[in-house]
Amino acid sequence: MKKSELYQHLNVQLDLAVEAHQLLRGESGEEIPGVLMNEQELEHAKVTIITVESDEGVEAIGKPKGHYITIDAPEIRTNNYVVHEDITHVLADRLIELMNLKEDASILIVGLGNWNATPDALGPQVIDKTMVTRHLYQLSPDELKGHLRKISAIAPGVLGLTGIETAEIIRGLVEHVKPDLVIAIDALAASSLERIGTSIQLADTGIHPGSGVGNRRAGITEETIGCKVIAIGLPTVVNAGVIAHDVVEGVFKEFVTSPKLYQLYKGIKPEVFSQIIDDVLSPFQGNLMVTPKEIDSLIKTVAKIIAGALAISLHPGIDREDYERYLQ
Amino acid sequence: MKKSELYQHLNVQLDLAVEAHQLLRGESGEEIPGVLMNEQELEHAKVTIITVESDEGVEAIGKPKGHYITIDAPEIRTNNYVVHEDITHVLADRLIELMNLKEDASILIVGLGNWNATPDALGPQVIDKTMVTRHLYQLSPDELKGHLRKISAIAPGVLGLTGIETAEIIRGLVEHVKPDLVIAIDALAASSLERIGTSIQLADTGIHPGSGVGNRRAGITEETIGCKVIAIGLPTVVNAGVIAHDVVEGVFKEFVTSPKLYQLYKGIKPEVFSQIIDDVLSPFQGNLMVTPKEIDSLIKTVAKIIAGALAISLHPGIDREDYERYLQ
Amino acid sequence: MKKSELYQHLNVQLDLAVEAHQLLRGESGEEIPGVLMNEQELEHAKVTIITVESDEGVEAIGKPKGHYITIDAPEIRTNNYVVHEDITHVLADRLIELMNLKEDASILIVGLGNWNATPDALGPQVIDKTMVTRHLYQLSPDELKGHLRKISAIAPGVLGLTGIETAEIIRGLVEHVKPDLVIAIDALAASSLERIGTSIQLADTGIHPGSGVGNRRAGITEETIGCKVIAIGLPTVVNAGVIAHDVVEGVFKEFVTSPKLYQLYKGIKPEVFSQIIDDVLSPFQGNLMVTPKEIDSLIKTVAKIIAGALAISLHPGIDREDYERYLQ
Amino acid sequence: MKKSELYQHLNVQLDLAVEAHQLLRGESGEEIPGVLMNEQELEHAKVTIITVESDEGVEAIGKPKGHYITIDAPEIRTNNYVVHEDITHVLADRLIELMNLKEDASILIVGLGNWNATPDALGPQVIDKTMVTRHLYQLSPDELKGHLRKISAIAPGVLGLTGIETAEIIRGLVEHVKPDLVIAIDALAASSLERIGTSIQLADTGIHPGSGVGNRRAGITEETIGCKVIAIGLPTVVNAGVIAHDVVEGVFKEFVTSPKLYQLYKGIKPEVFSQIIDDVLSPFQGNLMVTPKEIDSLIKTVAKIIAGALAISLHPGIDREDYERYLQ
Repeated sequence: MKKSELYQHLNVQLDLAVEAHQLLRGESGEEIPGVLMNEQELEHAKVTIITVESDEGVEAIGKPKGHYITIDAPEIRTNNYVVHEDITHVLADRLIELMNLKEDASILIVGLGNWNATPDALGPQVIDKTMVTRHLYQLSPDELKGHLRKISAIAPGVLGLTGIETAEIIRGLVEHVKPDLVIAIDALAASSLERIGTSIQLADTGIHPGSGVGNRRAGITEETIGCKVIAIGLPTVVNAGVIAHDVVEGVFKEFVTSPKLYQLYKGIKPEVFSQIIDDVLSPFQGNLMVTPKEIDSLIKTVAKIIAGALAISLHPGIDREDYERYLQ
Repeated sequence: MKKSELYQHLNVQLDLAVEAHQLLRGESGEEIPGVLMNEQELEHAKVTIITVESDEGVEAIGKPKGHYITIDAPEIRTNNYVVHEDITHVLADRLIELMNLKEDASILIVGLGNWNATPDALGPQVIDKTMVTRHLYQLSPDELKGHLRKISAIAPGVLGLTGIETAEIIRGLVEHVKPDLVIAIDALAASSLERIGTSIQLADTGIHPGSGVGNRRAGITEETIGCKVIAIGLPTVVNAGVIAHDVVEGVFKEFVTSPKLYQLYKGIKPEVFSQIIDDVLSPFQGNLMVTPKEIDSLIKTVAKIIAGALAISLHPGIDREDYERYLQ
Repeated sequence: MKKSELYQHLNVQLDLAVEAHQLLRGESGEEIPGVLMNEQELEHAKVTIITVESDEGVEAIGKPKGHYITIDAPEIRTNNYVVHEDITHVLADRLIELMNLKEDASILIVGLGNWNATPDALGPQVIDKTMVTRHLYQLSPDELKGHLRKISAIAPGVLGLTGIETAEIIRGLVEHVKPDLVIAIDALAASSLERIGTSIQLADTGIHPGSGVGNRRAGITEETIGCKVIAIGLPTVVNAGVIAHDVVEGVFKEFVTSPKLYQLYKGIKPEVFSQIIDDVLSPFQGNLMVTPKEIDSLIKTVAKIIAGALAISLHPGIDREDYERYLQ
Repeated sequence: MKKSELYQHLNVQLDLAVEAHQLLRGESGEEIPGVLMNEQELEHAKVTIITVESDEGVEAIGKPKGHYITIDAPEIRTNNYVVHEDITHVLADRLIELMNLKEDASILIVGLGNWNATPDALGPQVIDKTMVTRHLYQLSPDELKGHLRKISAIAPGVLGLTGIETAEIIRGLVEHVKPDLVIAIDALAASSLERIGTSIQLADTGIHPGSGVGNRRAGITEETIGCKVIAIGLPTVVNAGVIAHDVVEGVFKEFVTSPKLYQLYKGIKPEVFSQIIDDVLSPFQGNLMVTPKEIDSLIKTVAKIIAGALAISLHPGIDREDYERYLQ
């Protein structure tokens, strides 16, 4: 049984390109044509850039052409605020590169997710900490123009709260605000627990249907909203089916030393395995999340890091050492 | 000095048509051409309907053509929950008449105002209590259609939070959601303290620039958003300049019995009087609100009444006696 | 391997007496001396009463002497508000029996848990909906005394927010408020997913260390706070290790038909099995919760049910059919 | 009519010692025996220290013996974050002096006020931003002890939310937490609009009954809670009666040039004047607050300043230039 097949049966989608890439490489043991990977080790973070270059790559990895940058920083889980600032700078640098903003660009920041459900509240929390400047721009003196870009920001809520698809709301906003760039922030699902709260993904391809903790039903991409979209995501949960599979695999690896038995395990059909998992996870099945008890403080920490990196990367006038001053 | 002139100098706008009408009648002592008024006394509420019929009426009263219904219910300030239900029913009946909805209408409810500033938080609080049904409509069984109308709802935040004019946000939403009706809920300013928390105004003309507790800069009307708008408003504050004037008038009425003195007072030019008031109210002037300490619980009570009246008037399937069951 | 032994190694505690009882009965197949069980089937709920009568029972089931009433109502997960009212009445009746309040009793309601972490926010949400009357009591007319009991209420926050053990805070309150009864409301962990959001447990023994979603480190019992305590709990999560075990068991039951294999599985030592689970759940181990995506709306529904049952059972003056009027 | 007499009739209490002092000096034109005043002009703030030294001083100024330090910093109303940091440092220095903490002191911070009513929410907002360390202290390494003091923090809510007097709650906490110092933060009422949001008062005498925006009915002082109390207060409202008086005085000063008229005004008896004001302010009278529309952002700014000053002054290990890192 291939993990990728099981995931398909469990309706598990890999939000992180780095995980999709790892899964593919692990199973095939070969380079993926049309997909490049580049890694950098920094003091407090590992940066992985996956570039999907060709249609062949799109087909293989199941993600649209573009750049996917993952910053893995396990020290986010520590209480070391100095390290958190360093990670903020790493993220800001990547954002500056990826956004490549003109001096007078106008940016709309969208915090996706449900503020009433902690693991889904990353987007709204970043919006809360973000300084909004668009409405003050006309009033600001000439010498400051170019030092403070025009920022608007909204956390539109989720379908269950508004009755309106988030993509519909944002498309309407884009038509009236006419930003040069939309930045969409969302809580993601990972396939590995250690990524929870510590792997930040940037993508210049937007957000795709079915991603995220909530059930985003329509994508937030240049096609759907009519404006370039940079997505910033952070895994806050793992699908319960994925954990279930990993435990079973752990048990078999440990105990089933006879080749015959191992073959028995490997021979389980993904559809049967996924049925067992679904039975155990009844009555919630695919709608179960696994998340640490301290998820509220983890999200609070990362919301501060992302909001800080946005302040640095969006406003040339803000001193890197003093960005915290501008967090709301 | 005419009160209306002073208000002009103080930049005080009368959000309630019933107050604008009273002021005019009080000063001229005559019927206002093109403006009709009709009053009804109910057990727990007095209902006043002002109809602005002609351009002449518009000119005189400074409000667009349409219907302005005010429900005055001072017992909102008591803790009598049975009376609150009765007032909810009165409001529901007026809404049903004014909205005149077709069976399968789709309605977008917009809660204007700033959830971070208590006196401005009426709109967001009504949204919090409102059951959203638009996204479930396609899934509901045929026999229920017609019993539950399609409701979407949003509290878009204020300019200072988003950097985007509320009217821009709503126009974008209307273009995509395509509702038959927008209901906009807003906190208003009154010129009289006893109306705070107890006078609910319905208007089929929308919301006009400069109204409300916050500084709404663009109106929410059929012209600006492309959809019929019913406004539901409740005064939560009085402009401090208005109170200042009333106290001065109270002092003169009481003490200045000699006709000469009273003439002196009446001779004060509105621009001079408003300058004195501005000096005292410095450094905030027109941006000062007068509001009771218990404004948080008053708004909570009225948000429940409005959300209840919306549930009854929007959904034919909801039993009038059981509407509270459906408040979120 | 016995499930109970595995749970011990995983540090899983069964918050629900009905689950502890089931586990014991399942493993021994015998009556548990000193523990009585009584079941009732109602239209929309099943009520199970576990009575721990003797020291022998305490030893066996690991819970102090007293009554544990569980109301299982899977229809809480539906959107049928009429059924929710029926369940509210069932809960109210059980509370009236268990509390056995004198006419002029004073009650302190404590909402345990962290309002920033959705699965732990049940207690604070019930407090939000509860009408507080203690401070008005002296002012109320004689004829109302006996119709409205004296209620005080607080959501004290968790250790991570205050730096103070919740038990310390409550003990201090009890010394000054001197209530006749403390009602403590808490989110629990279950060992079975279908109990999430649908099994309400009442216990006259208080809350014990280590229970709940958060890490309550000290119990809230008559011994620790100096006042009789009734606990109302609702499972909102399942420990991830429990789910992991259930999936492995599911796989073996399905596939390992040969007695030899099944013996292999049964022979796994609990300490080894728990080590494998811990490895998979690294870096969070025992601190991982499994919870449905819709946990926010489930908790909202049950908070309304509990607050409604408290209103009915605490205030003789409140009409059962109109209790929703008094929810805040 | 003396202003002080009118205030008495209007039930206006001067929360700021600097205002009580000013009123007295203004009316008598003389030094107040037993009360010292000292002023310092800094770049962005004026610091006034009032010391009430003797019983005679207590009698005259109506405040208990102790120190009252007011930091007037009108630039809080600007958006200059660099200046805000400077004011934070000024406040921190005064706190360090006034608290005079021993190295291993334990401090309980109490945020008074109602989080549901913006002008009363200063205390709870400071608590939200404060790093709590008491529960981690035992775990921290020896070399850090002395660099991080033990902080616990709570926003207990108001009587209307809990049914319990705040003083009762705090007394209970003090008995169990046994702090060396309680710091109580509260929103105050001023008699002058320009002090709203810009005058921070420190007092080593605690908080006295009737102060504040809400109706605190019992004081928070060493006598009532059994622990030294430092109070930090900020005016967020002005009593509406005070404004009313000021406008009337403004009108008379401007217009009533004839000595006869001025005498008429001055001859108004305070009880009659306060009756007129009460009539105009009906039905709310003394419960009306005057507050600027932007009070939410003003309070947010000052909450950051106070929380920052607390971080610097409580924890010797925190670098003054980096305190913002530690705001939650």
